[in-house]
Amino acid sequence: MNNVIIGQSGGPTAAINATLAGAYAEAKKQSADRVYGMLGGVKGLIDGNYIDMDDYINDDSDISILVQTPSAALGSCRYKLPEYSDEPETYEKLFDIFKKLEISCFIYIGGNDSMDTIAKLSAYAESIKSPIRFMGAPKTVDNDLAVTDHTPGFGSAAKYIAATVKEIICDSSVYDIKSITVIEIMGRNAGWLTASAALAKGDDCVGVDLIYLPECAFELEKCAETVRKLLDKKNTVVIAVSEALRDKNGDYIVTTGSVHAGLDAFGHKIMSGTGQFLAQYLGKTLGVKARGIEINTLQRSAAHFASKQDLDESFAAGAAAVRAAFDGKTAEMAVIKRASDTPYEYKIETADINMIANVEKTIPREWIINDGTGVGEDFIKYCRPLIMGEVMPIIKDGLPVHMKFNKRKGI
Amino acid sequence: MNNVIIGQSGGPTAAINATLAGAYAEAKKQSADRVYGMLGGVKGLIDGNYIDMDDYINDDSDISILVQTPSAALGSCRYKLPEYSDEPETYEKLFDIFKKLEISCFIYIGGNDSMDTIAKLSAYAESIKSPIRFMGAPKTVDNDLAVTDHTPGFGSAAKYIAATVKEIICDSSVYDIKSITVIEIMGRNAGWLTASAALAKGDDCVGVDLIYLPECAFELEKCAETVRKLLDKKNTVVIAVSEALRDKNGDYIVTTGSVHAGLDAFGHKIMSGTGQFLAQYLGKTLGVKARGIEINTLQRSAAHFASKQDLDESFAAGAAAVRAAFDGKTAEMAVIKRASDTPYEYKIETADINMIANVEKTIPREWIINDGTGVGEDFIKYCRPLIMGEVMPIIKDGLPVHMKFNKRKGI
Repeated sequence: MNNVIIGQSGGPTAAINATLAGAYAEAKKQSADRVYGMLGGVKGLIDGNYIDMDDYINDDSDISILVQTPSAALGSCRYKLPEYSDEPETYEKLFDIFKKLEISCFIYIGGNDSMDTIAKLSAYAESIKSPIRFMGAPKTVDNDLAVTDHTPGFGSAAKYIAATVKEIICDSSVYDIKSITVIEIMGRNAGWLTASAALAKGDDCVGVDLIYLPECAFELEKCAETVRKLLDKKNTVVIAVSEALRDKNGDYIVTTGSVHAGLDAFGHKIMSGTGQFLAQYLGKTLGVKARGIEINTLQRSAAHFASKQDLDESFAAGAAAVRAAFDGKTAEMAVIKRASDTPYEYKIETADINMIANVEKTIPREWIINDGTGVGEDFIKYCRPLIMGEVMPIIKDGLPVHMKFNKRKGI
Repeated sequence: MNNVIIGQSGGPTAAINATLAGAYAEAKKQSADRVYGMLGGVKGLIDGNYIDMDDYINDDSDISILVQTPSAALGSCRYKLPEYSDEPETYEKLFDIFKKLEISCFIYIGGNDSMDTIAKLSAYAESIKSPIRFMGAPKTVDNDLAVTDHTPGFGSAAKYIAATVKEIICDSSVYDIKSITVIEIMGRNAGWLTASAALAKGDDCVGVDLIYLPECAFELEKCAETVRKLLDKKNTVVIAVSEALRDKNGDYIVTTGSVHAGLDAFGHKIMSGTGQFLAQYLGKTLGVKARGIEINTLQRSAAHFASKQDLDESFAAGAAAVRAAFDGKTAEMAVIKRASDTPYEYKIETADINMIANVEKTIPREWIINDGTGVGEDFIKYCRPLIMGEVMPIIKDGLPVHMKFNKRKGI
């Protein structure tokens, strides 16, 4: 009884498969007899869906391809495990599967919601005196996990966003006319990804003019006035906004029933499109050409321009979770500790899962500057090391190669 | 009187600066005393805006940075030169500038509209017996220029789109639920870029399920029925659509006054958003989760994942335009001729500008298959060579470095 099962949960990232690869490689190193992968997270496992990863991974080259494959190669789920008291049969079913597969270590790669699964399963295991260890490995582009300095997946998304913002600034400033470009970036409650637009600024790039984060209340009229003043001085105004700006009452700018909210083709309120909305509003109010650009899911799955630092750390975090489980730890998550900013150094430790599950970390208020329209050097110092280094993708027929687990249904 | 002036016109691409670099390098090789750059195309030049490119380009490293800089580094314009009979003073002003700058060759990098400028200026030069040669170099992500096999800029956009589509398919298929993803791609009249989504399919990727091109009339109800049947067989349906689909009457699906057209936040009809609209329509009609993704300007400026083949050809096309001008040619454009598919070989020739100006090339009808919902092997054979090869970007602080001509105003 020395087998490992690994699952992926929550939203895709460009680095979650690097963590899977790290966990797999470490499990083999720890002489696990078999390494299973849950297909579609713990929800899929409950339904009996899993693979033997050895059927797919034959050599180091397969590991390299898995590392650079975006999204969750095993499939994922958004599933909150019910309390044992509400659904004991679900727990019994899972532990029957563990018994059948001779599982000693359960590794779950995910964000704060997913760590709730580790917390519940490990508590149940303790209650029945099961020797199975349950370890979490962090994942989320949103970078909103507590305790860990940052999360695997964030660095790659931030690198892609910053590079894309540089390219958008080149593109937007090509004509000698006044224009406004609003770039919508992911992050409903934490502005880490939106803030990463600040990395674009440098000797060869003027950077974005304004950054609006979900951490600060947003005022539409004040924003228009700020942009009006900028347009007096320059042609091209580029703004980065979180997908979910709220007003001072905490109501979403776009999904509220306010007069600003648009209607979609079916008369429903628009549920996304803060960037598009703000571009329309500013263009109309200021009488200037305006364009909204939503980077959409591209930002979380752009493995073709991943951060080497992020992929390396993601791999290491997966390996650390498995190592800790083999060392007897349970109910913990691998966390990244920053040892030094310059030169950047990190180490991986583990932390109590209850410190992390269901907790959300936002940008420190003192890092936000210019009356809530930008981030300062503290953020740049924090974020820059995480986007360093490139990994040239493995290419076939002109395109990056991805790992595909063919047993996944219905793709 | 041996100087060269180069301008960029029309929409940005990831390769237009490679053509500028090629033209600059060839001009130096041909012993041009000075190489000027129009700031903001011929419109900017009329207003007296230009630079001496030698002030910015010092060595081969600067050339390499220029090659990988997206968008038009000199700035661009969308400007139709008036007829001489309507505005003789504009022509006289331009030729005064040419005289002052001792210009012998005028090189204009652009699409079919921009080539109209070359046609008009060269005709005027002939009428006044000016010895100045006017040569065009092709550029457009849309790949819609006549005579040339394909256009510089298209290959890089197609490569980025195909890689991004692969990533979107990974991202969209992560959950074990039914879903529809509609990816909106540029190209109002010619579907070349939208068709390039077909390149994503391979051993490791199921590819997009449907491709709707502007070349074919679009039927909303028929599309919904096709998607319904697909969803009976698989979970994840991914569709690539042109930004400007039309019905059988030639009316745009989204901008027509039909009941399907949405209203924006100000009660205006939505002028873009075919993908978003179709996602909403299909999601509502079929009762399935649906997401619209607009790749937007990212697809034309994604220099961070450019095609080496495209950048090499773009550079060569710029050089060829200058070489031809020094050889005494005028009123022509550099064109790419395909010598062979396998192995792919090309050569650059020149062609009469009047064959190209204001003409638009669309996808051959026989390359479009499956009742207008896909493209066949003919397209793949045509397009695949154009996306081959990668150029590792020159990186500083984790991001690609760009060339910046600081004299451009108001950025």
